[in-house]
Amino acid sequence: MSSDEQAIRDVVALWHRATNADDVDTVLGLMAEDVVFLVAGQPPMRGRSSFERGLRQLLTQQRIESTGDVQEVEVSGNLAYCWTVLTVRIVPRAGGDSAVRKGSALSILHKQQNGSWVVVRDANLLTAAS
Amino acid sequence: MSSDEQAIRDVVALWHRATNADDVDTVLGLMAEDVVFLVAGQPPMRGRSSFERGLRQLLTQQRIESTGDVQEVEVSGNLAYCWTVLTVRIVPRAGGDSAVRKGSALSILHKQQNGSWVVVRDANLLTAAS
Repeated sequence: MSSDEQAIRDVVALWHRATNADDVDTVLGLMAEDVVFLVAGQPPMRGRSSFERGLRQLLTQQRIESTGDVQEVEVSGNLAYCWTVLTVRIVPRAGGDSAVRKGSALSILHKQQNGSWVVVRDANLLTAAS
Repeated sequence: MSSDEQAIRDVVALWHRATNADDVDTVLGLMAEDVVFLVAGQPPMRGRSSFERGLRQLLTQQRIESTGDVQEVEVSGNLAYCWTVLTVRIVPRAGGDSAVRKGSALSILHKQQNGSWVVVRDANLLTAAS
């Protein structure tokens, strides 16, 4: 495995570890400022600040338990894609039933000048799991 | 615009033109044999032959009117991604109401040894349009 591929797998692992620890700042550091998140049935969510607002809002009432199982990573120069199968459990802090969503995400990453990789585009195909 | 970006935009345009003309063979030539299509709520659809079976089956009873509005293309070496906003109308050949689906697709393409580009991964975020 190339060092770039390992670095991208580390981004995915850190993303989930930080999300599960309510560490929003660390998650934000793993995406570009002009990131675009694509989900079904909604307009594209553009920009790190939009993601930040949504995540901080969600974390006031809930916590997230997520895992990502990387299916593949391909790198060419400063561009890469990563296909991950995600399981995301949204747990109400006040108690009650959790909501679980599963499915694939296809992410595009850029290598920055400092050598680190950040997510620039993300297509999220998660649906409610039975 | 680079010649690679133009070539990828041409792939998208030809994909829709051929689909609308029931020209399955041409569509199949625009994807790799080991292509994977990701959609929400279903297992990944692996392989050109799986796509072919599904498309030929659909076209027996319906025709497709689709358009793709390319939002962006980025190329690095032999790897590229393309974000497209799609509108797909499924029209029953026997008459009756059409079903319309809209949304984004995020596609990964490879440049082949002959210089042509083919789709290798595709995340399809289309949902029923009102």
